[in-house]
This record gives sequence, C-alpha cells and structure tokens, in this order.
Amino acid sequence: MVDLIEKKRDGKALSKEEINFIIEGYTDESIPDYQMSALLMAIFYQDMTDEEISQLTLAMANSGEIIDLSSIEGIKVDKHSTGGVGDTTTIVLAPLVASVGVPVAKMSGRGLGFTGGTLDKFEAIPGFKIELSEQEFIDIVNKSKVAVIGQSGNLAPADKKLYALRDVTATVDSIPLIASSIMSKKIAAGADAIVLDVTTGDGAFMKDIEDAKRLARTMVRIGNLAGRQTMAVISDMSEPLGEAIGNSLEIVEAIDTLKGNGPKDLTEMCYVLGSQMVVLAGKADSLEAARLMLEDALHSGKALEKFREMVKDQGGDESVIDHTEKILTAKYKIELPAKSSGYVTKLVANEIGIAAMTLGAGRKTKEDDIDHAVGIKLHKKVGDQVTEGESLLTIYANTQEVRDVEKLLYENISIGDIPKEPILIHDIITE
Amino acid sequence: MVDLIEKKRDGKALSKEEINFIIEGYTDESIPDYQMSALLMAIFYQDMTDEEISQLTLAMANSGEIIDLSSIEGIKVDKHSTGGVGDTTTIVLAPLVASVGVPVAKMSGRGLGFTGGTLDKFEAIPGFKIELSEQEFIDIVNKSKVAVIGQSGNLAPADKKLYALRDVTATVDSIPLIASSIMSKKIAAGADAIVLDVTTGDGAFMKDIEDAKRLARTMVRIGNLAGRQTMAVISDMSEPLGEAIGNSLEIVEAIDTLKGNGPKDLTEMCYVLGSQMVVLAGKADSLEAARLMLEDALHSGKALEKFREMVKDQGGDESVIDHTEKILTAKYKIELPAKSSGYVTKLVANEIGIAAMTLGAGRKTKEDDIDHAVGIKLHKKVGDQVTEGESLLTIYANTQEVRDVEKLLYENISIGDIPKEPILIHDIITE
Repeated sequence: MVDLIEKKRDGKALSKEEINFIIEGYTDESIPDYQMSALLMAIFYQDMTDEEISQLTLAMANSGEIIDLSSIEGIKVDKHSTGGVGDTTTIVLAPLVASVGVPVAKMSGRGLGFTGGTLDKFEAIPGFKIELSEQEFIDIVNKSKVAVIGQSGNLAPADKKLYALRDVTATVDSIPLIASSIMSKKIAAGADAIVLDVTTGDGAFMKDIEDAKRLARTMVRIGNLAGRQTMAVISDMSEPLGEAIGNSLEIVEAIDTLKGNGPKDLTEMCYVLGSQMVVLAGKADSLEAARLMLEDALHSGKALEKFREMVKDQGGDESVIDHTEKILTAKYKIELPAKSSGYVTKLVANEIGIAAMTLGAGRKTKEDDIDHAVGIKLHKKVGDQVTEGESLLTIYANTQEVRDVEKLLYENISIGDIPKEPILIHDIITE
Repeated sequence: MVDLIEKKRDGKALSKEEINFIIEGYTDESIPDYQMSALLMAIFYQDMTDEEISQLTLAMANSGEIIDLSSIEGIKVDKHSTGGVGDTTTIVLAPLVASVGVPVAKMSGRGLGFTGGTLDKFEAIPGFKIELSEQEFIDIVNKSKVAVIGQSGNLAPADKKLYALRDVTATVDSIPLIASSIMSKKIAAGADAIVLDVTTGDGAFMKDIEDAKRLARTMVRIGNLAGRQTMAVISDMSEPLGEAIGNSLEIVEAIDTLKGNGPKDLTEMCYVLGSQMVVLAGKADSLEAARLMLEDALHSGKALEKFREMVKDQGGDESVIDHTEKILTAKYKIELPAKSSGYVTKLVANEIGIAAMTLGAGRKTKEDDIDHAVGIKLHKKVGDQVTEGESLLTIYANTQEVRDVEKLLYENISIGDIPKEPILIHDIITE
C-alpha cells in the first residue's frame, strides 16, 4: 500500500488491479484509515485519469450487493441530481417518461436535507406504500413501467466508508472522488444508463460552474467507460427550482406540472432531463424527437394518467390528484409581503432551503421526524416584478412562531431596480 | 482538525497555536492517525514556511522531556549527520573540539544501519562504559569537556509517532518534515547550537544535491529561528567516508586520525565540521581561526591526549590507543584483489555499507547482535590508481564464507582508464 500511495503521490496512474487491491483491502479493513486518507489527499492533488476513476467506480460498486433489474424489460435509466432546493423533478419525471414507455424502477433514500427525500415526498400521499417486495416491485414496473421503493441491501459499502473518511480529512472536494462516489451507487442500484443533473450555484454542492462542468464531463466519460451510457445537464441552483419547497407542496407542484400548469423552470427542466432519459432508453433517436414525445405525453394527459396509475399501484389515495388541497394541511399560511417595489434579483436557494428545514420539512439528523405539510411556496421568482406589500411567498407552518424563518427569508431575498433574467440550464453534456 | 487540514491543503500557513494544537492532540491521541496522515500528505505538496517549520520543531521537542544541560559550563554544540557509510567523524570530533575547550555532552543511540551507532563504536574499546548517571555525565564533561552516554528519557515522542506514520503513508520525503524531525530531537537533547552534516549521493538519504542544499538551508534557518545557532556542511557520500567501515575498524581509524595519520577525506571533514562547532561554541571568531586551533590541537597531540582522557574517564582500556591491534580481533582477513588495472572510478557507498552489515557490523533489526570486530578496510578510494591483483580492500570477517560479500563488493567497485577527482564538500551553509 505504501508503494501505491507513493505512486499516486508522484502523479502516476494506478492500474485496475491496484485499485481493486485498495478497495478490497479498505473494505475488509486490511488497509487502515491512515493509509487511505494519505492516498485520498494524494488523489486530491494529483487527480485521476478517466480509466482510473472508472475502475475505482466499478470497484466500489462491486464492494457490496449489485441490484439485479434484469427481469425488468427494457433499458433501465436512472436519474441523479447532485442536490438542490425544491427539486421536484423526480416526481414529475417518473410518470412522464414511463408514459412514453421508459421503465422507471426507482430506488430511493430518505437522507438529510432541506426537505425529505423522494420517498418522504411520495409518502405525503395518504396510503402510498414504499415497502414493496422485490417481486411486487418488478411486477409493477413490468405492468405499469413505473414504481418507487426504499433502497434496500448493502449498496457500495466501500463508498460509504470512504465518504465518512473524506468528511473528516478535508478530501471531499475532489472531482474524481465525487464522481466515483455518485456513479458507484447508481451502478450498484442496477442502472443500465444514467442521466445526471449537476447543479451549480448557491444552493448546490458545486458553487462554481466550471467545477460543475468538469464533474459532469468526468461522470459522463466514466459512465460510458464503465458500460453505462450517461448524459448530463448542468443546471442552475442559485434560486430554488420551481415554486414549492416542502414534501406535500412538491407533490402538489408535481401534479400541477403533470396537468400542464407547472412552473416554467421546473417544466423545462423535466423536458430536458426527460429527453435524455428517453434517448438513453432507446425510445427516441434524438433529444429533439424525445422532447416532442414528452410534450405530447404531458399535453394529452397521458403523463398525468400514468401518475394516477402509479399512485393506485402503490396503494395511495388517487383522489389527491383532483383535490390537492387534501394534503396541504398545514395549520397556518403566512404571507411574506415585499418591503419595497421592484424586481426580484436574488432568492438564495441554500438559505431558503434552511428556512423550510427549520419549519420541519427536512431532517437535520437521522432521528428527526419530517412534517409533510409544512414548507414554502414562492409566488415570485428571480426576474419577476413585485409591488410593495405584495406577497413574495406563503409559509406553510404548524406553528405561529415563524419570526426567525421570516427574518431568514427577508435576508435572502433581494429586490432591485433592474430586471434580471435567470439562467436555468448552463450546459448539456451528451458525451 | 478538518479545518486545519483544509487550510494547509489550500496552501495557507498554520499559526503557532494551530501547530501546537495539532502536535498536542496527536501526542495525546485526540487527533487520529487518519487525520494526521491527510495533513502530512497536504504538507508534502504545499510545503511549510520557515516560521511553520520552526513552530512544528519546537512543538515536537516540547512533546516530551527536554534534557537540561545547563549545569554544564559553556555553549553545548551538538553535531548531527543525516547518515552515511563509515562515518567516523563523531569519534574524532568529540575529543578534537573538547581539546580546544568546547564542551561535548554527547547523547547517542544505537539504531539500525550499516555499522553500529556511536555507542556501539565506543563499546568496541574494552571496558568503555556508556551507562553513566546524569550526575557522573555532567561531572565528567565539566572536568574533561567530553563524555558520551546512551540516550535516555522520552525525547520528542511526537516525532517518534509521526515518523512511524510517515513511514507507512509515503510522506517521508518531505523537506519540512525531515527538517523538523531532526531538529526537534537535537533541541530535546539539550543542544544550545547545532552543526549539521547533510550528506548527499548514493550512500545518503538525500540522493540529489539540490535537495540536500534545500534541507540544509531549511534546518539552518529554523534552528536560528528556534534560538539555536545552526550551521551546516553539504558533504558527499557517493563513496564511504574514510577507509574503515565497522565498529573496531572505525575506532582504530579515529585513533590514527587523532595521531595525524588519518585518511585525507576524514581528516578534512573533521576540520570543517569541527571549525563550525568551535565558532558556534564561541571559542573562535571565524571558521579560519577555528581551523587553525584544531590543526594545532591535532598536530601537538592535544586531541589524542583528550581522547585518552575520555577513554580513561569512561572506564575504557586506554592501552588500545597505543596497541590498536588489540581490538582488531576478526578471525579472517581476506584481501579483495583488483581484477584489472586503472583508476578507481566508483565505490558505491550504500552497497559497501550493506556488505559490512552482512558481515555483522550493523543491525538489520533491533534484535540483531553487533560483531565489533568485523568490517571492511578500504585500501583504494575513488581517484586512486590500482594494478591488477593489488588488494582493493581487506574484509575483516569471523567466517570464511564471504563469497556473497565479495560478489557484492566487486559489483560496486568500478575501475576505469581515466582518473576521477572525488568531491568531498559541496557547500558550507552558515546562515
């Protein structure tokens, strides 16, 4: 191991066998943390070749169970976002792409964050069951093309162990390490192809757009090298995506979007990511053709019907789709009036996410309970005109004590004189 | 600690308080190995300022006992070599500089290597006692200006722990880490001033001369910053220093040198290092004046008398000085004849050291016994003319089975047509 650390330290590439030796040794604890952390720091400085990152990704994926989705017909495309605020895309995309024949076998987690994970959001629908047996799950996907269940099994344990070590050794911010961490989990979860939403801006992990592009290009290349066709979108997360931040609020926003009444940015994002999924699934030859299929599915009501079918399949109350007010049960709806007139120039995504978490929409620690009903609904987004006294957003709360949340929100919303055009998508990376 | 790793990772300098926090935390085990190794690798790439290295040196020195030599009169100058083959300088220098009034309170170790440590070499003199009480030690130095004892106490434990970690994490070859490791031990051992012999070439730790110069300059600067006046010599260790490699052989060589009959290179090296010691001890104003004092001490017999006094003080058999054959007790003396005529162009120091160790002159592991009598005595050095059949060296062995040693020696001695002038001293660094 010392020789391998030295090799990487001096900028040389590690071979497939060497990388397997390292990951196997680290997983079975024959390689100690202190050697691994020295290697991680060497990787931080020396980077890795695409070939090395691919081998690292595969070695980490192979360190535990690999989910076998081969009994589901068709090319299974998974989608992953590097994280954002109010990101409702998965809820819209699952029924949308399924409605044009792309199988969506989604395994999701709960996790920590501003709002719950995809599982928590679906659970905002009364009765919605995310604990299905593997056979039920596969049967539903084969019948209806879409199902979502909780992540089971021991996926990529080497990545779990490495991530914990990186967190305490200042080696998180390394593109090869981030890329292999994300991709190893997607591969272990059984994806045939992968669509990545690499977010950038205040609310995202990658603050810098050039870093986001480098990360996206790296993941696309290593996905392809590892035999998983991969595409990516570089999207902006300086302001929250869509208008809803909170579990029930996001379900309602997804339903509105599937009805064709969604926020412009969220709808556009779903078309862009969905088109890549459709192409990778082999259902269209080009992104343009895929987009036309998705637009048709949305406008014709096919996508909404697929969502209805999905809710029914998983035991959820489908009447919510026509009566969304049923799940918007927060006791208090508090408006936040604009203090001046002008144009919204800034909505700091990260801080607005923290406001929603403070209301109870997300978990700070694993033990926290989630309140599905609470959150924030934005009425104005960057570029919108606003008049003094007009409501900027509604706070959905189960307490009247929201002064701190209001203060945090005011501090992170700027109103100026000059209209600012927000950017949604910075780049699309297909190879 | 994560923040401090990140700070160094990003190339910023750590403060005195931060360095103390790290070394104290690592010594008391509140900072784990895996964070320390990540920091070490960051230091490998980002280097440290002189101020940081000085603080690191002092923090490591202060992590354990600091030897108090204040009851010894005068400025105590310690000498340290970064390692070589057949390095007899300490045995010559101790009585030589003591004979001009410089107090030499030498604490030495045994260690691993081609031959024994300074302690082992002195023990080649029958009766020589290196286990003195602290009071005896101090009394002898105050009376005779010179004594040597075994290193006692818990010196720089942080350095011991760090060195073991560096060894298994590919972070040994880092100038700030090497410099602070050496200097922390010298400071903990009570040195008021320090003379460094930084060796370079095949037989040395620093193979590259520019690296050796950087290391020497760094140590001189941080020694001065830490309040210990420091000077250094950059010396060549491509061939062994002097002619003797082995414990008794080196004692005899030291005696010959003190008699004025020593090898030219060893004698010169002792004058150069000794002059720095004399200047730092405040006994001369310039290196030139110091050298004249030392030349006089050697030629007048004062230095040899000091050696005799030293041996007597420590219970050794002083008759060895007049009858050196008494300690050259190896059973077999085997000559190695030259296979061709010409000039010696290469004597690979490192490999000749291994040959001596194979004979039993040094320890491979801590448990090995040392055979004081065995070793190698060179008759030809680089630049010397040799005739086919003439003896290149004598092997002193206690076995007749020396075929492997002979083979190794032949492989590492080159004879060519063109005389090559060896270089002894590459540079002298006084500030």
